[in-house]
Amino acid sequence: MKTAEVISIGDELTSGQRLDTNSQWISLQLGELGVRAMYHTTVADDLPANIAVFRSAVERADIVVASGGLGPTADDLTRDAVAHMAGVELVLDETQLRAIEAMFSRRGRPMPERNRVQALFPAGAVPIPNPNGTAPGIHLVVSRPNRSPCNLFCLPGVPAELFEMWRQTVAPAIAATMPEARVIRHRRIKCYGVGESHLEAMMPELIARTREPLVGITVSQATITLRITASGADDEACRRAMEPTVREIYDTLGTIVFGEEDDELQHAVARLLVQRGLTLATAEWGSAGLIARWLGEVSQGREHLAGGVVVASGHSAARLLGIDEALVARHGDTGREVATALATACREKTGADLALATSNVPPIDPTASVPPKFHIAIAASTGVAVHAARYAGHPDILKDRGGKDALNALRLHLLAAAD
Amino acid sequence: MKTAEVISIGDELTSGQRLDTNSQWISLQLGELGVRAMYHTTVADDLPANIAVFRSAVERADIVVASGGLGPTADDLTRDAVAHMAGVELVLDETQLRAIEAMFSRRGRPMPERNRVQALFPAGAVPIPNPNGTAPGIHLVVSRPNRSPCNLFCLPGVPAELFEMWRQTVAPAIAATMPEARVIRHRRIKCYGVGESHLEAMMPELIARTREPLVGITVSQATITLRITASGADDEACRRAMEPTVREIYDTLGTIVFGEEDDELQHAVARLLVQRGLTLATAEWGSAGLIARWLGEVSQGREHLAGGVVVASGHSAARLLGIDEALVARHGDTGREVATALATACREKTGADLALATSNVPPIDPTASVPPKFHIAIAASTGVAVHAARYAGHPDILKDRGGKDALNALRLHLLAAAD
Repeated sequence: MKTAEVISIGDELTSGQRLDTNSQWISLQLGELGVRAMYHTTVADDLPANIAVFRSAVERADIVVASGGLGPTADDLTRDAVAHMAGVELVLDETQLRAIEAMFSRRGRPMPERNRVQALFPAGAVPIPNPNGTAPGIHLVVSRPNRSPCNLFCLPGVPAELFEMWRQTVAPAIAATMPEARVIRHRRIKCYGVGESHLEAMMPELIARTREPLVGITVSQATITLRITASGADDEACRRAMEPTVREIYDTLGTIVFGEEDDELQHAVARLLVQRGLTLATAEWGSAGLIARWLGEVSQGREHLAGGVVVASGHSAARLLGIDEALVARHGDTGREVATALATACREKTGADLALATSNVPPIDPTASVPPKFHIAIAASTGVAVHAARYAGHPDILKDRGGKDALNALRLHLLAAAD
Repeated sequence: MKTAEVISIGDELTSGQRLDTNSQWISLQLGELGVRAMYHTTVADDLPANIAVFRSAVERADIVVASGGLGPTADDLTRDAVAHMAGVELVLDETQLRAIEAMFSRRGRPMPERNRVQALFPAGAVPIPNPNGTAPGIHLVVSRPNRSPCNLFCLPGVPAELFEMWRQTVAPAIAATMPEARVIRHRRIKCYGVGESHLEAMMPELIARTREPLVGITVSQATITLRITASGADDEACRRAMEPTVREIYDTLGTIVFGEEDDELQHAVARLLVQRGLTLATAEWGSAGLIARWLGEVSQGREHLAGGVVVASGHSAARLLGIDEALVARHGDTGREVATALATACREKTGADLALATSNVPPIDPTASVPPKFHIAIAASTGVAVHAARYAGHPDILKDRGGKDALNALRLHLLAAAD
């Protein structure tokens, strides 16, 4: 099995000022390609240390993937370190220089002289195009006496740039070096609405560590992910091996499952709106624009969004939606009355088929035995449905949790409306 | 200055299944003690690889802190690897064996035979007590020819156990090796509105690697962080050492600096609104609720928020803010006219002192030589100011970038209004 070393470069990482998440991501991707990461090395912005790290990595690993140190400033040392390690000069790549100049000119600015260094490459290296930034990556094949060569890839540290360059160039280049195709595939099924231990109790034998395919369970802010892992000769073999497990999960969990892979609740809601041909508007107090933002990030279904209102006080509820301020004063800003009034007024004002509203989130009192309620209202042509929820915990978590519960209530409403 | 290497051990880390956060925590603690972490190394559960990693670490660092691999199972290799590296035998420590037996008996269970290995230590090592678990740590002083010895500390990977062992034993042991009390402190200055290389060109000598105090530069989604690092006898000495550099940065960059440490643009805007006693409302098309969300996350200044509107089409702009749909049809949804109309109507509707509006973001055409414009409008009692911006890059980045540019335009407006 081919082995890999993942290198991250930067004082901000070795000093602990920033957490390195690129190494984890790269290691997961290597695993998908059937490559075992044996080492992660993080090194400070120091030229001799960088040279030593690259030297030892190309010695002990078949594939080396480095991130960081490709910027235009004096503390960006990766180019120099790789050239030193390989014992070659840095040479200017005219094509890359023109690409960097073009990127600046598209932004309406001349290229600063300093950025010229980003077009320098160790002799013999192949540039890795960076569609999202000015720093191209470096692919260098390093020959080793009596052994297969080491493939070294250097990428910028900015995650969005790194991810895209990995997908477009690095992953295919690594796959091309593999002797036989053996792939590892994952499928993630996303669930919402029950706790982790409750879900585990619904399907106890599924999480066993010896199971094939393996099912892992992780939770992030109340969204549960079931991750199925299979290995096989190709995509199709992995897909077939996973199929019975996937079936069992769907059959057992029903509407608790809302999607797969990178789906979030907003994707599930957007799909349902499109399927039903319905438009949605939002009126948010406690979730403070979070739901509008989540829905706005989903491109599918944007034409089904009829706008949103963010309310910050009884006064702004009155000005933006014509809510009676006395009603807020009488029932409190966290009550079912406010949620109902916001949903109703928002639906009328926007002319949307559906309106989703949140009341303000109650202040957190850690000493209270029963936390206060937060309200979600859904206004439809058939009337207004109100859901209450109680939360303990930190107020920041609570906003996210309230926003997710609101989207989930809407998702279940849309599912039920189909029957 | 003493240097350190931080080692993390485990397949779950190198494979990417788990994110390593111990290395970051340990590096921050080392920094507080005046020790500079130069390397982080993460290694899979493989004995030869572990021995090689320990060998190279004690060679290149004065202090080595490892976590993981001290459990009782066959894939826990740290003890063996350290003994091999140092060329010594493992010997049983009767006191530690009794402590482990006592921990099991307090839990009402006999000690499983395999936990006996946790009382084995490389000859010459000092056990590090673990009040929260069965795995004691290892402190070994490794002598090096013609140099001061390396202090090697091995701790379990469980964060709660590691933290407590660090506080009780490791930190005092490291402090005792230091010739004099010396601490490292950081200060981060946040900037927005120019590119990284432009900023560097404004103060070229500041980023020099040999400078004291050192200034590092990192960029995250167009926000630039200047990180100043100083070492000294205590907090006050570090603060004094940084002061002239901080002064120079503020004097040179002026309003490009918007804050320090964890500040984002919304914190700067919220502070200015509070200082000026002004209220703000938002009308977002392209940023789709992002600005409302960012401002809503900042608790200071929430009373200065007068609500917000998220617009998804000319129709919703008409219904929520009374914008003339014909105006949108005539000038396009990305134009200055729409941004102006949204800001004006939002200010009137909410009664806020200021309204900040964004036009829709133009569709991305990677083949276009000049990307289309996006517009930001600020309505105030004195009239409406409109800013245009062009972006290249991924649409997801663009929304964030547009939202940040809008907040920055508002920040500069508020600063100018003070003069």
